[in-house]
Amino acid sequence: MKKMKMKHTDHWAVGVDLGGTKIEVARVDSAGRVQERLRRPTPVKEGPNAVKKVIVDLVRRLRKLAGPPLGVGIGLAGQIDPSEGLVIFAPNLNWHDVPFQSDLKQSLEWPIVITNDVRAVTWGEWLHGAGKDCNDLVCLFIGTGIGGGVVSGGRILTGCSNTAGELGHMTIDLNGPLCTCGSRGCFEALAGGWAIEKMARDAIALDPVAGVQLIKLAGGSPRDVTAKTVAEAAHAGDLLGLRLVEQTAQSLIAGVTSVVNAFNPCLVILGGGVLEGLPELIDQIDMGVRKRALPAATASLQVLPSKLGNDAGVVGAAALAMKTFG
Amino acid sequence: MKKMKMKHTDHWAVGVDLGGTKIEVARVDSAGRVQERLRRPTPVKEGPNAVKKVIVDLVRRLRKLAGPPLGVGIGLAGQIDPSEGLVIFAPNLNWHDVPFQSDLKQSLEWPIVITNDVRAVTWGEWLHGAGKDCNDLVCLFIGTGIGGGVVSGGRILTGCSNTAGELGHMTIDLNGPLCTCGSRGCFEALAGGWAIEKMARDAIALDPVAGVQLIKLAGGSPRDVTAKTVAEAAHAGDLLGLRLVEQTAQSLIAGVTSVVNAFNPCLVILGGGVLEGLPELIDQIDMGVRKRALPAATASLQVLPSKLGNDAGVVGAAALAMKTFG
Repeated sequence: MKKMKMKHTDHWAVGVDLGGTKIEVARVDSAGRVQERLRRPTPVKEGPNAVKKVIVDLVRRLRKLAGPPLGVGIGLAGQIDPSEGLVIFAPNLNWHDVPFQSDLKQSLEWPIVITNDVRAVTWGEWLHGAGKDCNDLVCLFIGTGIGGGVVSGGRILTGCSNTAGELGHMTIDLNGPLCTCGSRGCFEALAGGWAIEKMARDAIALDPVAGVQLIKLAGGSPRDVTAKTVAEAAHAGDLLGLRLVEQTAQSLIAGVTSVVNAFNPCLVILGGGVLEGLPELIDQIDMGVRKRALPAATASLQVLPSKLGNDAGVVGAAALAMKTFG
Repeated sequence: MKKMKMKHTDHWAVGVDLGGTKIEVARVDSAGRVQERLRRPTPVKEGPNAVKKVIVDLVRRLRKLAGPPLGVGIGLAGQIDPSEGLVIFAPNLNWHDVPFQSDLKQSLEWPIVITNDVRAVTWGEWLHGAGKDCNDLVCLFIGTGIGGGVVSGGRILTGCSNTAGELGHMTIDLNGPLCTCGSRGCFEALAGGWAIEKMARDAIALDPVAGVQLIKLAGGSPRDVTAKTVAEAAHAGDLLGLRLVEQTAQSLIAGVTSVVNAFNPCLVILGGGVLEGLPELIDQIDMGVRKRALPAATASLQVLPSKLGNDAGVVGAAALAMKTFG
């Protein structure tokens, strides 16, 4: 018998990274490669309907370039009810109880799935990034805040109300600084971008002389000092910058230790803006966690940087859509 | 057609709770009820072979009382390689790399499964205790140390090297007191029985007058003050006792908050010796976590005391055996 060589049409899905400042819509193939990418500012002030119009427009443009997609995956920062794609709360967009999936369905003829942005990133890194072929991993993104996603035994953990993986709100310093969530000493209140910024400004207020280089790097005003400024100052050898980075490193080690002892992953994938500015921290976290976490939990542990970087969101949202509808 | 009423023989399994001081072996039926129970001191000093002989003897006695069991489940404090039932490390028994499952197999004709003690307790509470019919729960046992077990999406999390759920070693105070594991500020180093004992003795050393009632309750010597003494002193209105209990409560709230935000369980089951001595803490933890954890994670949360208490170990080990071999 002669084997027939089947010709497959190239399957693809739309991945949408819906952020507070920009909407990115990409055509992603079944290997997780971004084939096309379109971007627009997010019309936050104009509300969900305006956001919907932008997404519909961009998806239609992609569809013109290729055949029909298998589906549309959307990642956004917020709490999602996955059963109906209801956005319960999305602080960046200022949305409360927006039935975004059914809104979109009226204008798009392809199936739609909505997920939390860090959950999307986790799908991306798991299926096509640093976590390929790994069935026990934790994705930790240290940006303005800290978000996480957990794959355990080959499944993404969702929890009782779909909020599992809020690793930025594990307490790592029970009497520590106030967090935006109302608690104290949350992981992100010590090591997230907003916390680094606050620690820097507080330190400058206490000792303006020590903050001279930070202020200079920020363009002259202490109010413009950010986590990025802190990283730049540290790299330039500034003492306050170095101290703040060292403090952040210790907090990151404590937080990742909690994660490693609680979940026992084979792999921790680290990404996000703070670590992009301070990539040297990844090795430092790796070494620190090996000292601090249980030997039984670190014996089989790898710590790796995100492979997909800024693409993880669209790649992951598309991969989820492909997995759900493919 | 007439329905035939089938007569089932009553299925049962052996549950073994192998501790550092006693071995408990029970006949447990398919509903998780303990039908018979035998106990012996653990011959720790005589090594694995002596322990094996005790277990074999007790299992044979049970088998005389009933038909053959479906299997034998064993829970012990330590790190287990489940693929071959190898005990990698069991501190209470002072065992390193003991192939206990294959040792036992030579003397017992029924299949054997070995698991970590808190994992066994989690099986028990999940299948037959406070967590029945719940597919997202965390069991937290506050004894001398703090151990945990996690059911997420209807499966017990095992992790990469079978140590998932070491919740007692999540960092909750990154500059806090040293833990027995070598890290600092672990959950159990602030709220476990050994930590409460240490805090009490340290407080007495600093201020012996404040410790008068604790010393009296302990029988005259500060060295005999334990977590139990602290609970008794607090219940008698002693100020130092009350302060130590309040401090423990705050640590428990922080630790359970981490667990709730990380895993988003529907149910947290709390048990263990410390909470048996201070049952009023369960409501306090419940209220405190609702203030401190993310609203999205607590909206669907229940906090309940363990239902099986001291039976959870044997019931869970037997339930695991029944699930594995039934």
